[in-house]
Amino acid sequence: MKGQAKLLEKIVSLCKRRGFVFPSSEIYGGVEGVFDYGPLGTLLKENIKREWKKRFFQERRDEMSLVDGAVLMHPEVWKASGHLESFTDSLVECKKCHLRFREDKLTAKKCLSCGNEQFTAPRQFNLMFKTFLGPVQDSANVTYLRPETAQSMFTNFKLIQEIEGFKIPFGIAQIGKSFRNEITTGNFNFRSREFEIAEIEYFVEPGKDELWFTHWLKEWQKFLLDLGLKKQNLRLKEHSKKSLAHYSKRTVDIEYRFPFGWSELAGVANRTDYDLKRHSEFSGEDLRYFDEKRGKRYFPYVIEPTLGIERLFLALLIDAYEEVKGGRTKTTESVKEVEIFLRLSKKIAPIKVAIFPLVKNNLAIVKKAKEIFNLLKTYFVAEYHSSGSIGRRYRRADEVGTPFAVTCDFETLKKKDVTIRERDTMVQRRVKIKDLVEVLRVKLEN
Amino acid sequence: MKGQAKLLEKIVSLCKRRGFVFPSSEIYGGVEGVFDYGPLGTLLKENIKREWKKRFFQERRDEMSLVDGAVLMHPEVWKASGHLESFTDSLVECKKCHLRFREDKLTAKKCLSCGNEQFTAPRQFNLMFKTFLGPVQDSANVTYLRPETAQSMFTNFKLIQEIEGFKIPFGIAQIGKSFRNEITTGNFNFRSREFEIAEIEYFVEPGKDELWFTHWLKEWQKFLLDLGLKKQNLRLKEHSKKSLAHYSKRTVDIEYRFPFGWSELAGVANRTDYDLKRHSEFSGEDLRYFDEKRGKRYFPYVIEPTLGIERLFLALLIDAYEEVKGGRTKTTESVKEVEIFLRLSKKIAPIKVAIFPLVKNNLAIVKKAKEIFNLLKTYFVAEYHSSGSIGRRYRRADEVGTPFAVTCDFETLKKKDVTIRERDTMVQRRVKIKDLVEVLRVKLEN
Repeated sequence: MKGQAKLLEKIVSLCKRRGFVFPSSEIYGGVEGVFDYGPLGTLLKENIKREWKKRFFQERRDEMSLVDGAVLMHPEVWKASGHLESFTDSLVECKKCHLRFREDKLTAKKCLSCGNEQFTAPRQFNLMFKTFLGPVQDSANVTYLRPETAQSMFTNFKLIQEIEGFKIPFGIAQIGKSFRNEITTGNFNFRSREFEIAEIEYFVEPGKDELWFTHWLKEWQKFLLDLGLKKQNLRLKEHSKKSLAHYSKRTVDIEYRFPFGWSELAGVANRTDYDLKRHSEFSGEDLRYFDEKRGKRYFPYVIEPTLGIERLFLALLIDAYEEVKGGRTKTTESVKEVEIFLRLSKKIAPIKVAIFPLVKNNLAIVKKAKEIFNLLKTYFVAEYHSSGSIGRRYRRADEVGTPFAVTCDFETLKKKDVTIRERDTMVQRRVKIKDLVEVLRVKLEN
Repeated sequence: MKGQAKLLEKIVSLCKRRGFVFPSSEIYGGVEGVFDYGPLGTLLKENIKREWKKRFFQERRDEMSLVDGAVLMHPEVWKASGHLESFTDSLVECKKCHLRFREDKLTAKKCLSCGNEQFTAPRQFNLMFKTFLGPVQDSANVTYLRPETAQSMFTNFKLIQEIEGFKIPFGIAQIGKSFRNEITTGNFNFRSREFEIAEIEYFVEPGKDELWFTHWLKEWQKFLLDLGLKKQNLRLKEHSKKSLAHYSKRTVDIEYRFPFGWSELAGVANRTDYDLKRHSEFSGEDLRYFDEKRGKRYFPYVIEPTLGIERLFLALLIDAYEEVKGGRTKTTESVKEVEIFLRLSKKIAPIKVAIFPLVKNNLAIVKKAKEIFNLLKTYFVAEYHSSGSIGRRYRRADEVGTPFAVTCDFETLKKKDVTIRERDTMVQRRVKIKDLVEVLRVKLEN
């Protein structure tokens, strides 16, 4: 486990040094469990989200809708959903120093701060962030930041079904910010208070829910593997009756082998007809679906695959991370170093192509390299770098997983071609500048 | 103004009917100033954001960074930024019915609810949503939902500058959720409590700020025009000294002629060195920039172009909206109707191509149309529709601005070709199925 703890440290360090992710408001000491994403992190997250939407919305458009619901919802939503009553952790307070802890995390039975052994009786602490709508801060105006995106897919179920003209089975997909006021945060951005979830609510005929559960569990695992996670680092965990959420008939977590142990990355839940029934009851709107084929009206069952975007982000970095002692490129400067190499899939790599002039003191080469950067940047996320030796620039590109590097050298000026170096094989081949966009496009799409 | 009010009504109706945007938690009566985006609205917003990031980040990558900062920040941020003290509206309360109003909106001097004329003395109401971090709800744990994205670009200024190795002038770009607890909401999604802003903080040498202000004001207008807004519906409004925000030396709004009058859509502000200085003072971190060329350390000035994503969304819909009496396609059914036609630019249209079988009772044609849908959906956001007459399906595609419709007919089966109909010209031409992806790709990119 010591090597593993060190691995997490290395990832945290790389993330800050190269601008993936770092604590929010760091100049003020940070905010526990809250992170800002830098340029590479923002791009990586966007690429993950784009692939997800392509797979689960765009390519299933004939049966899948999409919403972008608000974080602020009507407070009644959280009564109906059961979150106001049940979305809690058990909390105890140290009688001496008054620090508060999540009861299930207090394994040592001693206060982690002062060592005292006496605690208050546990009370239920609701994990939803509370706020007030409008200028009056009284209980009538209390609402909450959503702790999951699911509810706007239930409150909009009927409207979306009518707009799309969909027949069951069909789904609604959403990626969005959610907030949980965790008592205990930690493990870098694994347990964050502000995070994004990708969720699907898939509405099916009651009785067919178990079949669809199996379908989605497979689809979900396939997506994770296709993005580049290693099979041996994923496993399924069936929830026991006791550990099921208040709305669930069955939940299976997809766990990833994080450096801090196997932990939940994604999951599939069978929410039954719980949410639609409750919202019908609390809102007075009939949210049943009319099944023309069977000539009857019923509450559909709901299969819910969910996925934590930041957790996937972290898992992808961990699985992509490699260290090569002595260096991959074996240039003079690198032989004593450990080189970092990020084997991210081309689809999600933040920067697609780096453009380098071989040397920075030849004006004609520099000018040509900038021209090529200006050409490529309209098609791909590209970077131009001229500082440091060419070997060092390749290593810096490898370190953030950039799949292609294009170098302009002396021959470029004569032959109107450049070298393309592939990150994984380090193979370099010359390509005519006029073919460059198409060559890169084909390589990136396949 | 009556026709204009009607136009807004029509847009609101189209937005709900076709799934662009509608009130959040509508089955509970909605939440004032908060909206959910349906499939077409989510896509339209994403396309706007993608174009913005392409223009201002990807194509300026050699001088532009990108962050995705958290909504929750350290409470000290809002002291340093001046928002805690100054981000307020003047509020009065009716002495009779206790309703509260924004003083500047109370033009009639009578309570809009009960008609009473006596109000409390105005007090300053802070527009930031308040919440509590962690399990203790006391003042030490109060924080706020960010009312603008700018602050995370200031708190991360030094870190980003070091990571990127940028020299002044350079910028940091961000699109993200912001929250303002508006006393008065309204005009559909124009004044929302939860919204997205696209902002750039552009760091320049003091003394060069006025030049860069002019540069960004031009760039900003160009972007709006390139997305499809009409020049005659945009104008500039210079802020008077009195109406400037507490951090600004100069602000120019870009106003759009909304159906409810000229109103702010975007703007450029000269924030001077106010924010970096204040954060240095409050955090104790030296946020000055070392200018190697001039051999001195100073606080850069900041030019800030900003843009409301939902406001641009609304303006784009308004400018794209056309009604054609008697119908464009002149089919038998349509001649008595008013046809709606959304002239959105191809780049931002939510659905790129619709695929129709000419008739739905010919199995071979239906099968072929589905095959073509399955081919196209991996490249473009595509939809398949088989219900209703072909004329009606064209009209429904026009109504949401879909630039291309592909129809499979009897000839398709013999000749392996389809018709492509262009939304704006209604011209139809036949294209071989094997060339379809490339033909559409070229049309969409140009």
